[in-house]
Amino acid sequence: MERTDWQRLSLNQITTERWSLREAAEGCVRAGISWIGLWRHKVQETGLAESKRILRDTGLKVSSLCRGGMFPAATAAERDRRLDDNRRAVEESAELGTDVLVLVCGPAPDKNIAEARKQVEEAIERLAPFAASHGVKLGIEPLHPMYAAERSVVNTLAQAAAMAERFDPAQVGVDVFHVWWDPDLFGQIERLKGRIFGFHVSDWPVPVPDLLMGRCMMGDGVIDIRRIREAVDAAGYDGPIEVEIFHQGIWDSPGDDVLSLMKTRFLEHV
Amino acid sequence: MERTDWQRLSLNQITTERWSLREAAEGCVRAGISWIGLWRHKVQETGLAESKRILRDTGLKVSSLCRGGMFPAATAAERDRRLDDNRRAVEESAELGTDVLVLVCGPAPDKNIAEARKQVEEAIERLAPFAASHGVKLGIEPLHPMYAAERSVVNTLAQAAAMAERFDPAQVGVDVFHVWWDPDLFGQIERLKGRIFGFHVSDWPVPVPDLLMGRCMMGDGVIDIRRIREAVDAAGYDGPIEVEIFHQGIWDSPGDDVLSLMKTRFLEHV
Repeated sequence: MERTDWQRLSLNQITTERWSLREAAEGCVRAGISWIGLWRHKVQETGLAESKRILRDTGLKVSSLCRGGMFPAATAAERDRRLDDNRRAVEESAELGTDVLVLVCGPAPDKNIAEARKQVEEAIERLAPFAASHGVKLGIEPLHPMYAAERSVVNTLAQAAAMAERFDPAQVGVDVFHVWWDPDLFGQIERLKGRIFGFHVSDWPVPVPDLLMGRCMMGDGVIDIRRIREAVDAAGYDGPIEVEIFHQGIWDSPGDDVLSLMKTRFLEHV
Repeated sequence: MERTDWQRLSLNQITTERWSLREAAEGCVRAGISWIGLWRHKVQETGLAESKRILRDTGLKVSSLCRGGMFPAATAAERDRRLDDNRRAVEESAELGTDVLVLVCGPAPDKNIAEARKQVEEAIERLAPFAASHGVKLGIEPLHPMYAAERSVVNTLAQAAAMAERFDPAQVGVDVFHVWWDPDLFGQIERLKGRIFGFHVSDWPVPVPDLLMGRCMMGDGVIDIRRIREAVDAAGYDGPIEVEIFHQGIWDSPGDDVLSLMKTRFLEHV
């Protein structure tokens, strides 16, 4: 299905990393984009009250807050501390008017990845009632397996789906960059019917220059984004679609140019 | 189970990338290592006849030949050409006295990864009888998902297992670097009982510096190698264990030092 408007387009503000929250919000308004995905460190930099004012003034809707998570740790005390931080993230999500907190679940503190995965489940189980009472969904985002050692031990849709099925209001986020390679991609998206909280797009360049900063603009890589988007649509997700790109060249470009290109590519490839 | 000898240790010659085949073979003899894993470009550089002489003179056993594969291509003619090249690789394996040809299956020529996976299956189906008639097993090696766009569209043990189950004499290679993150790792190793052709070890450093050259020496990373080795043993594999490390620092070190460290780490971590 061809796309003719930007209604579902959301700027994940990491894509314009040099912009402050105000600059990103005003950039969205200029570009006619009505959604924005926020990052906690950006909110902190601006202040929560001021961030809320900016959102109210611009009329932007918040698609999600990035990020909670980072649950596994070597000691119970440290795990409790992180859980507390996640409770703050849930509160911030509610304050900012979004019902989605994205979880990047965290790496293992040692060589025991199975134990770290258990700790993630325990943390989500403990966090879920608190999130529910704030009207916030916990969006488990499976991260690409190349981040298993440094960012998240949740690395496939199947694994995230199994957790979301156990812990209401946990849901699953689909980010094309993290999951496009999965031989069971479409089967898992179908399984997630009704449990997809968000959809992130970017692309995978060839050759990929770097692990963290390797993403590129939609259309500049090898991911069949439209096919994945149609599957996500078919699984019942009709919410905002965030463009989230970690890429030095994009970060170094003028924000207005990035948003303009992003809009074009969104119509062509998403 | 503690390890007290190096009987199963094999030097995959990419680990000592600067050594010629003769230098690597003589290095193994000096180090008391009785197995070597060869690469086709190294054999070519030395010549097949001369390579065979070196193996006979040193008495080394060949654990595998790297690599066949690279099957998907945009045209049928190009796919046929690649299949021919794989037939040559099967012949070379037999000539060199190894019964294992490692397959790195190749990337997609376009955005259609599902089609490329089908082309891999078709190629293995066509290659299998030829391999069988030469007494050579086709070792499907699932590569880490971060290589899906550039090296192989076979990215999980489950996917490789499904192929090996269909196409005799196809088997599956387990390389800890490629599969350690898999949430279903131990279930799939169990499923592969009797179908594992080889076991490769290295380690995953934190932070990982680079996609291709990111591997490190066993013990310098986060992979629980011994636990995986014990599972592979329990699945009936009792053949050579290749150390295969792409790492600039190791490539730049004197080969004898690398083999010495490799032996120590093999006892400690494998």
